[in-house]
Amino acid sequence: MVIQEIRVTPVAFRDPPLLNAAGVHEPWALRTVVEVVTDDGHSGLGETYGDLAHLDKVRECAKALVGLDVHHTHEMYARISAIVGDVVGDLHGLTGASSKEKSVDRVFSPFEVAALDIRGKAANVPVCDLLGGRVRDAVPYSAYLFYKWAGHPDAEPDRFGTALDPDGLVAQAALLIEEYGFRSIKLKGGVFPPDREIAAIRALHAAFPGVPLRLDPNTAWTVATSVRVARELDGVLQYLEDPAPEISGMARVARESGARLATNMCVVTPEHLPQALAQEAIQVLLLDHHYWGGLARSAQVAALCGTFGLELSMHSNSHLGISLAAMTHLAAATPNLTYACDTHTPWQDGQDVVKPGALRFVDGAVPVPPGPGLGVELDRDALAAMHEQYLACGLTARDDLGYMRRFQPDFTVRRAHW
Amino acid sequence: MVIQEIRVTPVAFRDPPLLNAAGVHEPWALRTVVEVVTDDGHSGLGETYGDLAHLDKVRECAKALVGLDVHHTHEMYARISAIVGDVVGDLHGLTGASSKEKSVDRVFSPFEVAALDIRGKAANVPVCDLLGGRVRDAVPYSAYLFYKWAGHPDAEPDRFGTALDPDGLVAQAALLIEEYGFRSIKLKGGVFPPDREIAAIRALHAAFPGVPLRLDPNTAWTVATSVRVARELDGVLQYLEDPAPEISGMARVARESGARLATNMCVVTPEHLPQALAQEAIQVLLLDHHYWGGLARSAQVAALCGTFGLELSMHSNSHLGISLAAMTHLAAATPNLTYACDTHTPWQDGQDVVKPGALRFVDGAVPVPPGPGLGVELDRDALAAMHEQYLACGLTARDDLGYMRRFQPDFTVRRAHW
Repeated sequence: MVIQEIRVTPVAFRDPPLLNAAGVHEPWALRTVVEVVTDDGHSGLGETYGDLAHLDKVRECAKALVGLDVHHTHEMYARISAIVGDVVGDLHGLTGASSKEKSVDRVFSPFEVAALDIRGKAANVPVCDLLGGRVRDAVPYSAYLFYKWAGHPDAEPDRFGTALDPDGLVAQAALLIEEYGFRSIKLKGGVFPPDREIAAIRALHAAFPGVPLRLDPNTAWTVATSVRVARELDGVLQYLEDPAPEISGMARVARESGARLATNMCVVTPEHLPQALAQEAIQVLLLDHHYWGGLARSAQVAALCGTFGLELSMHSNSHLGISLAAMTHLAAATPNLTYACDTHTPWQDGQDVVKPGALRFVDGAVPVPPGPGLGVELDRDALAAMHEQYLACGLTARDDLGYMRRFQPDFTVRRAHW
Repeated sequence: MVIQEIRVTPVAFRDPPLLNAAGVHEPWALRTVVEVVTDDGHSGLGETYGDLAHLDKVRECAKALVGLDVHHTHEMYARISAIVGDVVGDLHGLTGASSKEKSVDRVFSPFEVAALDIRGKAANVPVCDLLGGRVRDAVPYSAYLFYKWAGHPDAEPDRFGTALDPDGLVAQAALLIEEYGFRSIKLKGGVFPPDREIAAIRALHAAFPGVPLRLDPNTAWTVATSVRVARELDGVLQYLEDPAPEISGMARVARESGARLATNMCVVTPEHLPQALAQEAIQVLLLDHHYWGGLARSAQVAALCGTFGLELSMHSNSHLGISLAAMTHLAAATPNLTYACDTHTPWQDGQDVVKPGALRFVDGAVPVPPGPGLGVELDRDALAAMHEQYLACGLTARDDLGYMRRFQPDFTVRRAHW
């Protein structure tokens, strides 16, 4: 199964004004769709970031992979590593520091996912079967709450409403739970001073008793603030995500608060794991196959976490159905991934590049798509339309900060800010 | 590809009187051949230990796996874990301590290898392609030297000759290198007082200048002796294997001698890795898929070693061609397995359960068998004959100590002995 052609298509889809420590989501979210076609007529899908610097590397690497067998992922990784060369960073910084290793893993990921999609189709098995087989039939996701404006400043309000206080967040949670059946809740914090976010968590705890809660301020707090918040929310949070920057900072928070800490920011490549483990900085790793080098490498990291007693959940950026399918297969085949995963799916609000039907939420969980490979099929009309949107929207990189500064010129990224 | 039948066949083959810290090899080496047959007519091979307690568990588990898809290795592992229940130890102790985890991994391994053999055949790719593809076309092995008697006490001398002194070992090395083309040498030590083994290493160093050398006394030495020997052989050994017992002992040897230490005894399951890494006890892990839970789990451990900067080589017990094929596929697909692997193949002296031709040595390396799956085919006549030998030989477990005591009644296992 030799790679004959790889099509790389940047797309854009509408995104609500979701607030975070780096600013606010722009009206369009960018992604890149990768289609790998083999000489025997199979094709496979991958999905990755849409930032132009990254997209350029994906395009360059796509050319270098033609002629390779889809099984030969070690060689694929070596070729990509040789091409990526240097750090290909992202602007928003919400997934931690950039590095050569992380850049290679990010570029490699969509090709690896597409290769597994093809192998699954050829063997007539779902991708999770290439990762040891499912240990759960459906993968639970959490309701991912955001502080948000009513709509983008120059547009009509969206259907999700305003959420700038506890009542707004409770209403948002109720909407997402009603529509998706989620059984756990994550709040993207780092937007308002910590006491306002503590109040929001308390309101959610009161409104949804027994529902596990998480708070993720994206390193907006100092160590001292993190310790204080962790203590105040002791017994209320399932875990606290990235309260303070850096492995050393997280280690101090963990030591001084005793709270269960999760990260997708201070441990973002394998090279961070030894120091994080030595310092006992985290208890939960939020895996993300988009920057942990695809599904098989993520499964290896998951095994490592099991060996060292680290728990696992899954991180998400804005994404489409190809990524949701990939995340679901990986989570289904990872025995020690026992927390509900994050997903931005509700904010995508029905927009997708895959044909409807394969992916659905039942009680907050996505049943593993039964079809072979990833189990999703490209909707070529939707892909073309979203590519047109990409060309028309004028965005070439996610820039939550720049967009926010159009409305609040003095806004700065909140890093150890409170 | 649902498992319809699993055939489990214990076999015995002639083994020379190879000396080690636990005694001497008996005239027959025992192995178990596992054949998995699926409902669509595919079959796959695995090979494992022949000790009766282990064989009984393999037989019991074989029954429990019928009806399972060959991709569903997580479920396979879970079922085996439920059955194994308790520690299934080995008598010789040359692969370190027994544990529940290790027992499960040992029983699981041949089924997992057979499942990969089937998946490779079905996809028409070699097993290494299911592990990311080969990063080398041939896998280098080392000449595995043993102190040995001329022959078993009640039999004719074998063709390998006596090796009880440096001259005998140099002659043995010359024979193995001539026949196989090996480019590195390992000496099984722990047989004579350390100064005799130092002299042997020096003789090999003089006779084969530039050829990497290793010495493995199987924990026969104290920490103090290990440090002394390591210092004396500084610059002569590529690495020193398991000089002293336990992670803590190895850590002291590493710290006090600065030598590069390898192990297949103090780190034998994933649960040992955190403490060994924290104590910096070893620099090289000798992977062995027979007790590290098969090929995919071994690949995960290899990835972990890469993350933590541990180097990799591969351990071997007496084995047949199914295992050599499996080891070759794993090593070929493991980028950071850069040392020549161990193999007992020369001592097997042509006896095998697989048909000739698929496995060969070229300049001390085994080219990856090109055929699909493991690339080896069962020789049913040979299997039947070796099974008859198993029934006739009367052995049911490897017992180097008991056999040695027939000739030296006061012999005790050398553990921190010198």
